[in-house]
This record gives sequence, C-alpha cells and structure tokens, in this order.
Amino acid sequence: MWPHGDTKAPVATTVLNHLERLRNRASFIANSCKEIRDRYDQKEDGLYYLTTANGGVYQTFCDMTTAGGGWTLVASVHENNMYGKCTVGDRWSSQQGSNPNWPDGDGNWANMVTFGTTDGATSDDFKNPGYYDIVAEDMSVWHRRFLTIYGGNLHQLFKLYPVRYNAGACGNTGPAIPIMYDFGNIETTRGFYGPNLRNQFEPGFITFRPINNVRAAMAICSGVKPIPNTRCDTEHYCIGGGGHFPEQAPRQCGDFPSFDWNGYGTNTEWSSSKEITEAAVLLFYR
Amino acid sequence: MWPHGDTKAPVATTVLNHLERLRNRASFIANSCKEIRDRYDQKEDGLYYLTTANGGVYQTFCDMTTAGGGWTLVASVHENNMYGKCTVGDRWSSQQGSNPNWPDGDGNWANMVTFGTTDGATSDDFKNPGYYDIVAEDMSVWHRRFLTIYGGNLHQLFKLYPVRYNAGACGNTGPAIPIMYDFGNIETTRGFYGPNLRNQFEPGFITFRPINNVRAAMAICSGVKPIPNTRCDTEHYCIGGGGHFPEQAPRQCGDFPSFDWNGYGTNTEWSSSKEITEAAVLLFYR
Amino acid sequence: MWPHGDTKAPVATTVLNHLERLRNRASFIANSCKEIRDRYDQKEDGLYYLTTANGGVYQTFCDMTTAGGGWTLVASVHENNMYGKCTVGDRWSSQQGSNPNWPDGDGNWANMVTFGTTDGATSDDFKNPGYYDIVAEDMSVWHRRFLTIYGGNLHQLFKLYPVRYNAGACGNTGPAIPIMYDFGNIETTRGFYGPNLRNQFEPGFITFRPINNVRAAMAICSGVKPIPNTRCDTEHYCIGGGGHFPEQAPRQCGDFPSFDWNGYGTNTEWSSSKEITEAAVLLFYR
Repeated sequence: MWPHGDTKAPVATTVLNHLERLRNRASFIANSCKEIRDRYDQKEDGLYYLTTANGGVYQTFCDMTTAGGGWTLVASVHENNMYGKCTVGDRWSSQQGSNPNWPDGDGNWANMVTFGTTDGATSDDFKNPGYYDIVAEDMSVWHRRFLTIYGGNLHQLFKLYPVRYNAGACGNTGPAIPIMYDFGNIETTRGFYGPNLRNQFEPGFITFRPINNVRAAMAICSGVKPIPNTRCDTEHYCIGGGGHFPEQAPRQCGDFPSFDWNGYGTNTEWSSSKEITEAAVLLFYR
Repeated sequence: MWPHGDTKAPVATTVLNHLERLRNRASFIANSCKEIRDRYDQKEDGLYYLTTANGGVYQTFCDMTTAGGGWTLVASVHENNMYGKCTVGDRWSSQQGSNPNWPDGDGNWANMVTFGTTDGATSDDFKNPGYYDIVAEDMSVWHRRFLTIYGGNLHQLFKLYPVRYNAGACGNTGPAIPIMYDFGNIETTRGFYGPNLRNQFEPGFITFRPINNVRAAMAICSGVKPIPNTRCDTEHYCIGGGGHFPEQAPRQCGDFPSFDWNGYGTNTEWSSSKEITEAAVLLFYR
Repeated sequence: MWPHGDTKAPVATTVLNHLERLRNRASFIANSCKEIRDRYDQKEDGLYYLTTANGGVYQTFCDMTTAGGGWTLVASVHENNMYGKCTVGDRWSSQQGSNPNWPDGDGNWANMVTFGTTDGATSDDFKNPGYYDIVAEDMSVWHRRFLTIYGGNLHQLFKLYPVRYNAGACGNTGPAIPIMYDFGNIETTRGFYGPNLRNQFEPGFITFRPINNVRAAMAICSGVKPIPNTRCDTEHYCIGGGGHFPEQAPRQCGDFPSFDWNGYGTNTEWSSSKEITEAAVLLFYR
C-alpha cells in the first residue's frame, strides 16, 4: 500500500506489468550497457535502448550478470552455410566469392554498416551501432574470455590492422591479448580445432588480424595465439576475413574460413569440431 | 470547448494533428494487435508499436477491421524473381542454390532471424519479431482465409515439422486445417494453380510442411490440402521451402518453388496463374 | 543558476547532457527535416526522428546548415564492388546478374522496400521511408547541386519513367533539370567522367531515367544532361539501372554501371575518375 494514504500513487510507483516494465527502459539514456548499469542500477539481463554519440537510438542485449555485468552485445559472427564459400550471408568476409581485386571483401570489420538483429544473433550475422560507437574498456567473446583493449573498439582496431588480402605476410598479426576464462579452459579451447593445428597455436589469448601463409587476412582468433615460426594455417582456427583466400579459391573463403577442410565438423586433421563450427561467436564490449 | 471552463484542457484532450495522433500510439504497450484492440479500443488499420516478451520494440501493421480486427501482420512471402532459382531474395527457401548438403536452406521458417519492413511487405519478403514472439490463436493468410492453430505460432510449428530436404516422403505433411473464406472461395482458389494439379489437392484448407515426390519440403499450401495417394507435385502449388529441390535442380528451387514450370503465369499444365505468381502472401496472427 | 531561487528547477529547464539533448528529439513530430526546422527551430545537423503518413517512425540525418537547411537524407547509391557485375549489394540495379527476363532488376527505384542505415550511408546502399513518403519541393544530390522537382518524389517519378530494360530507346529520358552548384562547378563535373564522353553530355543538369544505345535504362545522371543525337553511352556516366545491360552482359551491369570500362578509376577513354567511382551519391529532399 502506498504509505501516505493517498488514493493515487505517483505514476512512478504504479505497479507495472511485465511489458510496461520493459518498455520503461526506453526512458534510460546511455551510450552502453555499462552506463545503464552504473547510472540506472539495472541488474537484469535483457534488451535495453542505447543512444549513439550522434543521437542514433537502438536496442541491444545487455548482459548484466556475468562478471559484474555491464556487457553490451555489439556483434555476432555466424557461419550460415559452410558449403557456401564467400556467398550470401558471409558478411564478415565476402559475399561475392574470393577475388584478389576486392581485397577487403565486404569490409564490415572496419566500416559503419550494420545488419541483423539481437534476437537473431545466434542464427545469423549481427552488427549494431555499438560496434563503432562505444569506446570499450574490455571486450568479451562468447562470455568465456575477456580482455582489455586499449580504450577503443574493434572498428578502430581494424582500421589500423586491415582485414584485407595481401595486407601482410605469414607471422604478421595485430595484438594478441591474454584472456580470462569464465567458462571452459585452455584444453577445451585446444580441442575445438583440428589435431594438425594444435602445435601451431597457444590457447589463452585472443588474437586480431592474423595473416596466413598465402597472405589471406582473418579478423579474430578467438581463444588462441598463433605461435611464431609455425605454418600460419590460421584459416582453420580464426574467423572472418577479407575478400580473397588464394588456396584452392574459393574453397577457404567464408566467415569461418576453412573449418571444414577435412569434412564438416569431423575434428580430424585440419577440421574443427561440430560444436565450434555451429557456434555463433558473440562479441561484447564493456 | 473544454466543458469545465478551464483555460487549459488536459493534455489527453488536446486536439492532435494526424502525425501526433499516430505517434501517440507509441504509448500503447501490448504484445499483439489483438491486445491493442482489446486494451486500447483501437479500430483503425495502421502501424502500431508492439513489445516482445524480452522487451524488443517494433512497429507493424494491425488490421483492425477484417473479421473483428486484432490481426498482426507478421510475415510476407514474395517471389522477387521467378527467373532466379534459389538466388538472392529467396529468403523463405534458399538464397544459395539448391544443395542437398544444406537441407534447411536459409532456415527462416524456424529461426528468429527477421528481415524486411511493413511498408515493403508486398514487394519483398518480410518477417518481424511477432512471427516467433506472439502466441497466436488464429492465423490468416491473405485475408482470405482463417484457421485456428493450437495456441502456438509458425516458428514453433516449423520446429516440429522441419522445412528441410529429406525430412520425409511423399504423403507426409504437417497439419491441414479447414479455412474460412472472407474473400474468394473454393473455385477461385482451385483456378490459381495449373490444370494438371487440380485433381491433386482439395481447396478449403491450409496445409503445413508438405513433402513432394522427390523429398523436397515446402512450408505452406495456402488454400489447399494435398489429396493422399496422388502424385505429390506440391512444388507447383505450395510456397517456401528447404535448401534442395532435386528435380532438375535448381529449376524448382525458390520461394514460389515451381509455379512457372510451363512458363511464367501461363496457368497451363503445371503453371500457376499470373495473379498468384505475382502476389505477396501476407501472414497475420490473432 | 535557476533565477527564481528554487532549489529544484522545472524538468524542462534542467541542463541536459549531450545524449539527453539528442534523445529529446524523439519528442518532435514531423514528416521531414524541413518541418523539424520550421516547427522546432532546429539548426544543428544530426539524426532526427521522422514520422510517415501511416505512422511509421524512423531516424535519419537532417542537414540543417547547407543552403538554409531542412534537407532530409533519403537515400544513397554506392558501388560496393566494381568487380561484381549485378551481384550482391547492387540494390539500385540488379543483385542477380543481367537478365532481359527481369527488366526492372531489383526495382528499388519505384517500390517501397528500404535498406541500409544512415550511419552506413557512405559505405553501403541506403534507402529509408522518406524516399517514398516525403513530398519534396527540392532535391539535392551530394550537396553540390539542387533542383526543383514538381512537388513529388523519386518514388513517383520512377513510376512514371520506369528504370526498366527496354522501356525506351537511345535519346529517351525523363526530365532534365538545371542545377545550382554549392560546391564544385561545371568543369569539375565534366572531369569526373571519361574523356571520350565529354562531348556527349552537358554539365549543369540532373537527368532522370536515360536509355542507352542498347535499350538499357539508368536512373540518374548526376550533374549532366545527355546531348540529343549523340551516342547515348550513358552507362559510363549515369547511375543505377534496371535488370539488364545487353552490351557484353553482365559487364556493364551494376549500381555504377560501366564506370570501369577502361579500367577502375583510370579516367581514360570511357572510364570515370577514382574519386567519382568511390563516392557514395547521397540523395536529399526538402
């Protein structure tokens, strides 16, 4: 009961039903889930409205419970069709085949194009304005690992380290950053990828923009760091890419480039496990 | 004049201009057009805001006049290019050709990916969050027929009956449900499809997930039920599909799979009429 | 300090921070940036909410400073991949090759389909509901030229003059309208296009729906008017198109159809300059 004996309670204390309570989040004004958490004391996972620096308004998922909360979902990488090699849906590499004249491919790692929806983020590629708008202190991939990226965001990072065919050679990478595991560990990460690769990488890191041995660029090695002076077969364990993968083109071209070299999900020789092949890689900022 | 003699009327009674009145709908909070109708007593067709169970907000068209109103537009199926066989724009089948290794094709009948807009729903494929979020009592296709679906929605239905190549054989279908005609009737429905087919189906029903005689899956036969022990040539009169149509692949693959087998819109032999080939099939829930 | 000595100022006069001020724009109700300017006295470039005649709400960029302001960004045309000839991303021509059976191609010049985002408008094709909803008095292309179009919009214009293969012959065009230059001039415009073309067009105009010498249709010649009784090689200096470009098909098919005939960005013979090839053409209404 409203403590002051009035017949009408102030609007703010009216009991709101579930949808009304959710819609109430539209009155929050913040640039990131971290600000929502800090300024409005929200502790519930769900969809919230965010506002960009130029006034754009969008909804996205905030993880308010993992590792202190305040995580903004900004993107997901999903291989919609392992048999389609740089075809429709490969927005994080190329939707138009493997072509050395189009070295950036779709270019979405470093531009301001957005696509997909929060609800669809685990079945399709997704990228929202937070990807380029939020200045992140931390980044999380899959909720299984965290890292500090130098007060920036991936949009800025990939402008410095282009995900572009022929932008470098085997052994060149962007930063590799140690990670913390919330779930999983070094050995589960190692097992996701083909046995032939396991001496090429070191788990416990996230690595940006590796180049493979035929100068194809990828965007993220989620959970591992290529070991210097090994074969640079990063197309089998890193994701995203530019517009050309020369080896037997277009056979290695795609969002999960060549996870299926020795068969889909077989986890033999160079092939990844079915689990990792079918996962959507969710990217969060904080 | 405001009846109490005050110089200022309450905000709610201020005369609103057209756009203001429409924008006022943003204050309604409901999960479906049926709730909008019931709770806010709206009787005008148009765009309204809806809120999903997890707080997502979207606008869609509410039909508030047909058969009592309260109908939410959740999807449309449109064949953008009859000459493009499972190419870009065939989101309700496959945008990447006909491929037995990709039996679900784009998979949009059973996932939470959304696309298109309400305004564009008659010229392009469309699917909004209502498709998976609203728990429907009834469904309407094209405003010409209605049916009761067991307290669920199509998203749930197609998880039970996958629109997937090789998910069954000729004669297997999901539920077939009698329909009511608001416009048109049994004979107009029969005439939409090729004369060679008219002894294969019975008008007056909507049928879900038929399988044809070479194990290709379709999603909806709008207006008809295949008659058991006939040839199962459902590719000529049912819409949507999985990722592979074996007969002369990819010639039968697409959102309106093989409506043009004997020429576009000829309505001879196995071909549909031009009217039905160029229609957008609008799906409403209530 | 609040002048009346109260400890609490009314909410409306509370100093709003940057995001709050931007979100405040959600309370404006208008059909165009011109109305925003006129009714709410806004003088700052940025994102504003607009409402369509049927109640649809969207955000877009308003240019409130150029030539008096009030310009609504409604579309952009961007050639995402000059090497992809009517492939994914060629939404202003055809995303499915060059095909005489599909003479309109994607048909987006005259339908109500929308795509892309304001933030992404310079790196990808973009079209918002303003394209068909706003009744424009003026139109601006690139902020470098302005014209009066007869109280309509492009959606209406292209319904009258279809951007469709075989809709006319060499010499047929829609209206050609003199332009004003804010930036640039007649000679800079002339130099954008290949030297072989410079006696075929007259700068200082915008021309709609030209037909080339093999009956391919384009949508806009931005800055020039084809001179009657010349060769009608408009594929080298006009943008957008229908679904078929016969000459060496699909080599001339695309959003910037054949700007690269003698090499990408070479500005020799029939080829355009790199500057114009890589530009996004932004369309504004007022």
